[in-house]
Amino acid sequence: MLNLVERAAGETLTFEERLAKAAQTVDHRLGELLPPVDLRPSELHSAMRYSCLAPGKRLRPVLCLLAAQAVGALPIRALDAACAVEMIHCFSLIHDDLPAIDNDDLRRGRPTCHVQFGEAVAILAGDALFALAFDTLARVEGDPAAVLRSMRVLTHAVGSDGLVGGETVDILSEGKAVDRDTLDYIHTRKTGALISAAAEIGAILGGGTEVQIRKLREYGEKIGLAFQIADDVLNETGTSEQLGKAVGSDRERQKATYPALYGLEASRVRALELADESAKLVEGMHQEQMLTAIARYSVERLN
Amino acid sequence: MLNLVERAAGETLTFEERLAKAAQTVDHRLGELLPPVDLRPSELHSAMRYSCLAPGKRLRPVLCLLAAQAVGALPIRALDAACAVEMIHCFSLIHDDLPAIDNDDLRRGRPTCHVQFGEAVAILAGDALFALAFDTLARVEGDPAAVLRSMRVLTHAVGSDGLVGGETVDILSEGKAVDRDTLDYIHTRKTGALISAAAEIGAILGGGTEVQIRKLREYGEKIGLAFQIADDVLNETGTSEQLGKAVGSDRERQKATYPALYGLEASRVRALELADESAKLVEGMHQEQMLTAIARYSVERLN
Repeated sequence: MLNLVERAAGETLTFEERLAKAAQTVDHRLGELLPPVDLRPSELHSAMRYSCLAPGKRLRPVLCLLAAQAVGALPIRALDAACAVEMIHCFSLIHDDLPAIDNDDLRRGRPTCHVQFGEAVAILAGDALFALAFDTLARVEGDPAAVLRSMRVLTHAVGSDGLVGGETVDILSEGKAVDRDTLDYIHTRKTGALISAAAEIGAILGGGTEVQIRKLREYGEKIGLAFQIADDVLNETGTSEQLGKAVGSDRERQKATYPALYGLEASRVRALELADESAKLVEGMHQEQMLTAIARYSVERLN
Repeated sequence: MLNLVERAAGETLTFEERLAKAAQTVDHRLGELLPPVDLRPSELHSAMRYSCLAPGKRLRPVLCLLAAQAVGALPIRALDAACAVEMIHCFSLIHDDLPAIDNDDLRRGRPTCHVQFGEAVAILAGDALFALAFDTLARVEGDPAAVLRSMRVLTHAVGSDGLVGGETVDILSEGKAVDRDTLDYIHTRKTGALISAAAEIGAILGGGTEVQIRKLREYGEKIGLAFQIADDVLNETGTSEQLGKAVGSDRERQKATYPALYGLEASRVRALELADESAKLVEGMHQEQMLTAIARYSVERLN
């Protein structure tokens, strides 16, 4: 594993420790933003918290915080926006896991939301997280024009030309021969869109220049694609522990994947290239070390 | 039927004609805002347009336009926000109709979205409309602080303390004895929240005073409740043509309704009272005549 070391105020933290610390900050704030379970409707709030506070790397919100720091701002400036991004991620996981869509029973090593709470509550919990994400973003303090710009980045990332569009093409392509254009369409939207939005929003709320905002958006796009390719490869070669779901499930479902179209080795090479390209984009920025480490981390599991 | 007559520039329009004209304006703009069917993913965009452009009264967006006019602004100031409100309404109809929730096959006299396009596409089309609503609102021109305030009104109206919360308590209460508090909780959120938000957002974007904004919000709350009670009554006594769905379906499903708890006559009286109270709130405002007519229209079918 990577072992980047930072020394500050007598502290020695590895990359993983810094990542975990940032994720904790996000989890703490998420816990405050999510409605309490004793507030009506209790079942809905339980389901929202169950899915949104499930153990996870919090890659997207952490990237959002790092992007704000990368352009010279304090991470707190982007903390609520980072939580909004994570809520959107969780909403999309809940809906994608539904029986009518991917029909997954296991997520992050635990029963999926509809298995735990029933389909109706799962659908509604996804919807409520969606609403809470935009509510949270609409309450961010600072320049209202910058907040509205962040909002447009997030709505685009999630809409019919983003996450939801990618998921639609993905499920409608199951069992069909998929060309490279379609695979790119799916991957850039299903995974790339939100990761890229996370970095872009952090840069916007951190007060970055247009050049910095563009570079961090592109960094996010490349990281997102690298992650998705790595996931595709691991779905073929990994263990179910690494994946948190069944191995070979993509192939079984005849899902469009990188290895299916390009082969395992070419996929691995492409993911490594993307990690390098993304690292170049953040050269000279604050937090370059962490951002580069995340780029490497996205493909780490392939080595 | 009501037959309010307005004479302007040689025109003589009845209330229904003015309502229909405003609805046409909304439909035209919705047609522009919704992604075209020939854009990928075509099935998703077809489903979004099918549900969002289905024939309807467009009560919520028309109220939004009227509220902007009520505080002295041109209706165009609130047109895109009005479309955003209608998109949210359509998203909630699509998800509520799903087999796992209300399992309705018929909506506005046509097959529901999941019957027409399949469950997966219906869930995703609802999600995409949700995203498009906030995207549309985030692009509204004008004072960014007022736009963000409208956004917060809309996110609250739709979230776990609004539409989605109301729907959750509604389905979890099926087949159970429901008290008056619970029925109020459901009705104010399932129907009242979005109608009230529509009026409030129109008043905010129209540049209304705090008093005007509050009055129009309360006007919307009362109209919303009046409509819901009228719907409950008609579900018992109306024809399936009036309803666009099967008569007595609420009773069959043991849904919490006003008539079930208060009786038909008391429900009818309460709805008429609410219509009167809402009309009083808009006394002296521009568009008083139309707003009062809508108040009466909400309970018209009960006479």
